[in-house]
Amino acid sequence: MTTPPTAQGKSHRLWGGRFGSTSAPELVALNRSIGTDFRLWPFDIQLSKAWALALWNAGVLSMEESVSLERGLGAVATRLAAGAAPEPTDEDIHTMIDRLLHEEVGDVAGKLHTGRSRNDQVATATRLWVMDACLALDASVRGLESVLLHHATKLEADEVLMPAFTHLQRAQPVAAAHWMLSHFWPLERDRARLAQAARNASSLPLGSGAIAGSAFPVSRVLLKESLGFAHVAPNSMDAVGDRDFIADVLYALTLLGVHVSRLAEDLILFGTSEFGFVKFGDRYSTGSSMMPQKRNPDVLEIARGGPARMLGDLTSLLVTLKGLPSGYNKDLQDDKRALFDAVDVMQLILPAVSGAVEELRFDTTRMRAALSSTMMATDLADWLVDHGVAFRDAHAAVGRLVREAEEQGIELDGLSPDVMAAAHPLFTPSVVRSALSPESSVARRSVVGGTAFSSVKEQLAAARASVGSSSEMPRGNELAIKD
Amino acid sequence: MTTPPTAQGKSHRLWGGRFGSTSAPELVALNRSIGTDFRLWPFDIQLSKAWALALWNAGVLSMEESVSLERGLGAVATRLAAGAAPEPTDEDIHTMIDRLLHEEVGDVAGKLHTGRSRNDQVATATRLWVMDACLALDASVRGLESVLLHHATKLEADEVLMPAFTHLQRAQPVAAAHWMLSHFWPLERDRARLAQAARNASSLPLGSGAIAGSAFPVSRVLLKESLGFAHVAPNSMDAVGDRDFIADVLYALTLLGVHVSRLAEDLILFGTSEFGFVKFGDRYSTGSSMMPQKRNPDVLEIARGGPARMLGDLTSLLVTLKGLPSGYNKDLQDDKRALFDAVDVMQLILPAVSGAVEELRFDTTRMRAALSSTMMATDLADWLVDHGVAFRDAHAAVGRLVREAEEQGIELDGLSPDVMAAAHPLFTPSVVRSALSPESSVARRSVVGGTAFSSVKEQLAAARASVGSSSEMPRGNELAIKD
Amino acid sequence: MTTPPTAQGKSHRLWGGRFGSTSAPELVALNRSIGTDFRLWPFDIQLSKAWALALWNAGVLSMEESVSLERGLGAVATRLAAGAAPEPTDEDIHTMIDRLLHEEVGDVAGKLHTGRSRNDQVATATRLWVMDACLALDASVRGLESVLLHHATKLEADEVLMPAFTHLQRAQPVAAAHWMLSHFWPLERDRARLAQAARNASSLPLGSGAIAGSAFPVSRVLLKESLGFAHVAPNSMDAVGDRDFIADVLYALTLLGVHVSRLAEDLILFGTSEFGFVKFGDRYSTGSSMMPQKRNPDVLEIARGGPARMLGDLTSLLVTLKGLPSGYNKDLQDDKRALFDAVDVMQLILPAVSGAVEELRFDTTRMRAALSSTMMATDLADWLVDHGVAFRDAHAAVGRLVREAEEQGIELDGLSPDVMAAAHPLFTPSVVRSALSPESSVARRSVVGGTAFSSVKEQLAAARASVGSSSEMPRGNELAIKD
Amino acid sequence: MTTPPTAQGKSHRLWGGRFGSTSAPELVALNRSIGTDFRLWPFDIQLSKAWALALWNAGVLSMEESVSLERGLGAVATRLAAGAAPEPTDEDIHTMIDRLLHEEVGDVAGKLHTGRSRNDQVATATRLWVMDACLALDASVRGLESVLLHHATKLEADEVLMPAFTHLQRAQPVAAAHWMLSHFWPLERDRARLAQAARNASSLPLGSGAIAGSAFPVSRVLLKESLGFAHVAPNSMDAVGDRDFIADVLYALTLLGVHVSRLAEDLILFGTSEFGFVKFGDRYSTGSSMMPQKRNPDVLEIARGGPARMLGDLTSLLVTLKGLPSGYNKDLQDDKRALFDAVDVMQLILPAVSGAVEELRFDTTRMRAALSSTMMATDLADWLVDHGVAFRDAHAAVGRLVREAEEQGIELDGLSPDVMAAAHPLFTPSVVRSALSPESSVARRSVVGGTAFSSVKEQLAAARASVGSSSEMPRGNELAIKD
Repeated sequence: MTTPPTAQGKSHRLWGGRFGSTSAPELVALNRSIGTDFRLWPFDIQLSKAWALALWNAGVLSMEESVSLERGLGAVATRLAAGAAPEPTDEDIHTMIDRLLHEEVGDVAGKLHTGRSRNDQVATATRLWVMDACLALDASVRGLESVLLHHATKLEADEVLMPAFTHLQRAQPVAAAHWMLSHFWPLERDRARLAQAARNASSLPLGSGAIAGSAFPVSRVLLKESLGFAHVAPNSMDAVGDRDFIADVLYALTLLGVHVSRLAEDLILFGTSEFGFVKFGDRYSTGSSMMPQKRNPDVLEIARGGPARMLGDLTSLLVTLKGLPSGYNKDLQDDKRALFDAVDVMQLILPAVSGAVEELRFDTTRMRAALSSTMMATDLADWLVDHGVAFRDAHAAVGRLVREAEEQGIELDGLSPDVMAAAHPLFTPSVVRSALSPESSVARRSVVGGTAFSSVKEQLAAARASVGSSSEMPRGNELAIKD
Repeated sequence: MTTPPTAQGKSHRLWGGRFGSTSAPELVALNRSIGTDFRLWPFDIQLSKAWALALWNAGVLSMEESVSLERGLGAVATRLAAGAAPEPTDEDIHTMIDRLLHEEVGDVAGKLHTGRSRNDQVATATRLWVMDACLALDASVRGLESVLLHHATKLEADEVLMPAFTHLQRAQPVAAAHWMLSHFWPLERDRARLAQAARNASSLPLGSGAIAGSAFPVSRVLLKESLGFAHVAPNSMDAVGDRDFIADVLYALTLLGVHVSRLAEDLILFGTSEFGFVKFGDRYSTGSSMMPQKRNPDVLEIARGGPARMLGDLTSLLVTLKGLPSGYNKDLQDDKRALFDAVDVMQLILPAVSGAVEELRFDTTRMRAALSSTMMATDLADWLVDHGVAFRDAHAAVGRLVREAEEQGIELDGLSPDVMAAAHPLFTPSVVRSALSPESSVARRSVVGGTAFSSVKEQLAAARASVGSSSEMPRGNELAIKD
Repeated sequence: MTTPPTAQGKSHRLWGGRFGSTSAPELVALNRSIGTDFRLWPFDIQLSKAWALALWNAGVLSMEESVSLERGLGAVATRLAAGAAPEPTDEDIHTMIDRLLHEEVGDVAGKLHTGRSRNDQVATATRLWVMDACLALDASVRGLESVLLHHATKLEADEVLMPAFTHLQRAQPVAAAHWMLSHFWPLERDRARLAQAARNASSLPLGSGAIAGSAFPVSRVLLKESLGFAHVAPNSMDAVGDRDFIADVLYALTLLGVHVSRLAEDLILFGTSEFGFVKFGDRYSTGSSMMPQKRNPDVLEIARGGPARMLGDLTSLLVTLKGLPSGYNKDLQDDKRALFDAVDVMQLILPAVSGAVEELRFDTTRMRAALSSTMMATDLADWLVDHGVAFRDAHAAVGRLVREAEEQGIELDGLSPDVMAAAHPLFTPSVVRSALSPESSVARRSVVGGTAFSSVKEQLAAARASVGSSSEMPRGNELAIKD
Repeated sequence: MTTPPTAQGKSHRLWGGRFGSTSAPELVALNRSIGTDFRLWPFDIQLSKAWALALWNAGVLSMEESVSLERGLGAVATRLAAGAAPEPTDEDIHTMIDRLLHEEVGDVAGKLHTGRSRNDQVATATRLWVMDACLALDASVRGLESVLLHHATKLEADEVLMPAFTHLQRAQPVAAAHWMLSHFWPLERDRARLAQAARNASSLPLGSGAIAGSAFPVSRVLLKESLGFAHVAPNSMDAVGDRDFIADVLYALTLLGVHVSRLAEDLILFGTSEFGFVKFGDRYSTGSSMMPQKRNPDVLEIARGGPARMLGDLTSLLVTLKGLPSGYNKDLQDDKRALFDAVDVMQLILPAVSGAVEELRFDTTRMRAALSSTMMATDLADWLVDHGVAFRDAHAAVGRLVREAEEQGIELDGLSPDVMAAAHPLFTPSVVRSALSPESSVARRSVVGGTAFSSVKEQLAAARASVGSSSEMPRGNELAIKD
């Protein structure tokens, strides 16, 4: 983490003595990161306050100096919250805060840098941001989950049936609530991953200095406690170059994005004129500049595309890390861009998808109508099994019926009794009719996790309990700025 | 999960009645996966035994049938362990086992398919494989960790110093053991990720049927217990299409690969003639067909490149999953190839890197000689801070000395006393000499996680304790085949 | 490119004197690449023959020696073509050929290594392979194109209409042949990319030695001519480390895979029961072990997933190359695995997709029936424009009609004349009926590239001409082995 | 390409009649793209002018209307160039231009939309932007090439030698100019790829309407000519969904980034204290907030990390495209973000790297000093070959010497004459001394592309000629705004 030798102003004088000439504008442009890292300011303030306290505790600063710095940082926070904007010489948010702090408290501001480096400072601020972001993301995921549960509850109460698909071919009838809940559980796994990412972020780098550890006897345990971290990072060289916690967030977001994209894909398909299972609401649909009749599910399409971008961000970070030598390297500058980009996109997508899904209306008549009798072929075979026929033989017998029906261009329940009986002597019309009922097909699948309404009820209860309990997630202590 | 309508043999008769003509050879070639999934056989046997038991428990099979199936499966396992090879009509390992089982027990083999589908079967076998693989990977990681600890212990005992680098520029002196341990802690994080991946794999799909749940009243709790899973998958539609657990492994491997690549990069650099910190041993170096003098660190280079391949596999899986409709889709066939590829590569790389690192010899003289006095510039500034100068002013004063030394082409300790005193009146020759000592620089950094030998000793103890404790990882019950 | 110091046999004696102990088995396992690179043998033979000739031409070998080597290489090729298998000590195909050549011609075999290195040798063989593979891929792409043209010709002749979709919502009617051809042109772009990749491969590394250029005065122009390359690589350091040409192939394959995946996605959708536009043939469909009625489009699903794997391979190569120091580094060993993997998968997918598409049957009745009158809303608006109304006003008027129809749950052509007239005074029943005809909608779009049958006819002719002309692609000279 | 049904203002009234309620703010936030696409405005103006002309030519607009639109568009361009900013209701730049055009010319603005759609409009504007960007990128690449040639010329004139590395181990001596040029040729390949990408972009979508082709008889040939495209896109469905040209640019940038990263990696290594081959200049180095002595090559590190980001963008686009159904889908909205991001980063990196490289100073003494005599081992072996020894035997003899020297801890030229003679009877002291001279080693490699100064001179001449000739790149006609 470096500053270019341009500036003559106070904020950069730290290494003004080092270089013979000023920085090239091309370098300044490349290095300037305040456009990205400005949002870290509340966390930088927070950790700087903790640092001032720790320096006092270590006997490096007097009580007066420490208090002055803490007050100054509070004043800076107030200005930033009120909209203070960067100046052209502010390379990054840390430089900017340094400048503002000098304006507030004068030369004592310089003492805040004692024993710390931008390497451990930035790593700490970013980890605080991540812990905060994971909490916010968890809330957004739960928002979407609630919408899914709301629909599932209604669909279960109405005992709505629909086809389940494999290979996008109609496979077997299921409770529509069962389908809806199949998109709920992946989100629960995502919440667990986000919580794990937050826990991984909760290892304190501050006190690691540039790379070898702070040369001043600050208490890192005190820092950890005052900032709300779970652990102290055990090795300073590792601590300043470790970006695993960002990769963890990006991975969790990508997989969350994948799950949302699968939900979106289902809904886009079900919303076609051809499927017709759902209708998109006005508030989340768009029209066309050319075609007056269009009702486009833009939100769902963007959600479907979302993981492409998050995977791009994840790829970008992992590739940056690969083969990097020990310690801090400037290649890492791009880590926060990838992190913020993925989080921002997800925080746009989740509420929009929640809204779009909430507004959906289900055409339960068309869903039920799609349950062609051929989908119950398995049940017909199962009936034979129940009556002592080996499953493979039963499968073969029904297979012949399916082929016959397909050749006639009809459904299974349209075959004549003679054809039925020819396939297997046990097949009488009433047996066939009963076995081909979607309701009985669904009812049979009453194993745990199956689609029978009895099972779905239990599943719903488990889902409600799960979403109701908050993730165990570490969180930084209350932000100074919110005091 | 499907079988092509080619085969006329027993193993395929399940849907022989369905299609009018045989499969195209192009389809068969594309669909055939036994080259990939053969290794799943012990797990397929294991779950099939559990399934036979569960079918009996559910009253679907008689005790006799169930026992016959279990014995038959045992005999099949024996043949597979003895080297039984696939036949051309064996599309995948599950088809092959089915064929062998028919050979062993006759028609009752057909009953094993009752109420299950290849969708839940394959998902279950793969999860069992993953749990097993995570344990094996954990052992390999610990192998590498032990080698690092061995070197760190020796380097600490010998109080070896070396430069730490940031931006690949010499930054500050550190204990060589501190550097070595900076590669240890990332591996501990990787072990935690692998354990998490194994836990995520430990959710039982069996009983989910093709998509809607088994139509036979098998006890999924019994299945879970007999197979050693931690949970029962709560939704059958989710269960057959969920490949998150594979993504979790691939992600954990990619990040593990990244960490190993960073170690490899350090060692490749340190092993150049220019650095000369380490010598590669004979047993892990290669020569050149053209240049007789070459001693190439192939293992480390391949390890450096390793995460490229694992990231390729991770990308491949995530892209496959993105936007996929609900339920099983054949796109997923490639999931196991990516999984096995990444695990196999890692299991080649880890032992080789462990061996190569073990064989390294450190040239501690050259490491020490690289500690040019300019690296202690921070300490010189810190000395001023200790004597009441603000850090920023101290930094500036030392910055001027550095510039002067650079212009003269000498190190800091070569500057004349006059020049020193001109930079700051407190700088006397003895002060400067003492402040520029690497030993005192290192000793000052005695915070937790710092490079002082006192801190490193504690770090080493913590590391030893950490590697000694095994990961809490779920494991499938003992494999049938191992009985 | 290196060999491990294991072997005691002839094939490895080149650097037997270099190391004090034998290689570790872990190194040997990691380095062994013959499983991957065996297929390079015809190209290695070819370039070795050219090299023997060039060494004679340079006065390094006698005529006798050169002829002996050439004959020996021919004999080796014959053995390899007949199935000669690697021995455990054969690290790679080049070592194996060296061993066989010693068996054929004795010690003169050692002279073949004069002035060359495995670095330039492997790079040259791989480029020859790539040129060959691009030709084969071009043929496979043309195979698929022909199938598309066949269908397009028939659909055009039958004047079949269907809906075009945007946002997967019905947008406007198009000629079905127009849709089919929309998948043709991307493939033409892919052919151009493959040809470009082959041209990029056609730059000769041979003569670059290990890195600095051969120390023997071989004529690289002679080598270029005898091997059929277009250029001589201008810089030896670049030549041995340049893998751009592999990236070019992988990129071309990934985008080709993307195009095939879009075709596959269309067909999977159109083959659902809900769309019903196409029927999958028996020979390219699969059944289910559980559901007797299933007819799954496995080939298309695997094709849809294909680019995930190719992108994985591309990612893997690009990540390997990123940040690599000058010259050859062992990280590159994985380049050929990625290359062969992607080419092999594509060569499985293309014929299978060609077959599956060829076997499709179109349900033209359902395609036509999907042209609900609301899709002609744009045409109704256009009619107003033709009669002097501004497009935006026309759009608004028709938009009101669409909303009205949607609220009534009917199509546009079901609205009453009163409602029509209320939306715009020019709307009389006959005007509306005529404007809402799909045939006239299609006919109006007669611009170049539009969907009118007149335009489609021209497009078809252009497509036929394009596929008929072979790509201008470099090709290596006839392989020795084929003589 | 769609607009949300929010706005009540003029710019959105096109589909005001379609929906019953206003858009949700979450939808608006997600859909709003003007932050990204604002920069397309000059190209949107340009194509709109061409469209106005084509509508007149087709008899759809009167001459007056067409002229009015063209003048209005000119006025809008003037306002945009002067800094006109978007309003909150401007969803994208096209909506904004529409609003401004209404302000300028009133209701006739509405007629500009006749027969076109945002689908073909946006695709056309993006293609114009890409052609323009490729030209600008080509200039930046040539800038870097010139700097490399400048250094190469000087290094060649000074006959500077240095080690070439393979596996990062010293391999053979080369002319430093040869090394420098090894980074030139990859850039030439990149220029060719950029030119190819520009040519691929030069296929005109305009006239394709939303998907089926424009319903008004505009001349697409006239449009092509007036906008400077090379071809008319042959199929309207393909034209609106084709983003291959963006993938081509992203791929070309990624590989360009890879090449720059390899140059950067070499320089970062060569700039370490340990190598010491180059010194980084003040204007492109940065200091440290903590360590006064640091001189960090930030620019080169960021350049090394650059391809990670570009690969992320490429991945993101390819994943978006994979498996997308025919026609325009909203997922594509993200295409431009990826495109602009990668181009912008590259346009920051290239000038900065050019500057940083220009400012480098070479320490030719240290480069020469790194040529330890052992590096000429190959030459010693070659000398034996010249005197009739088989290369493999020669290699073995020299291998023994290398091992002996390594065991003694000395270089080859330090071995005693007895040891030499024992390795091979032809080795006399004068023979050995002469063969181990770096100058003669380099001189021997005089093949085309070799490192001999005679070859490097020719290579330099070829490089100069190559960079001097501009790429054959299509370019859009002069932009309206520049008139």
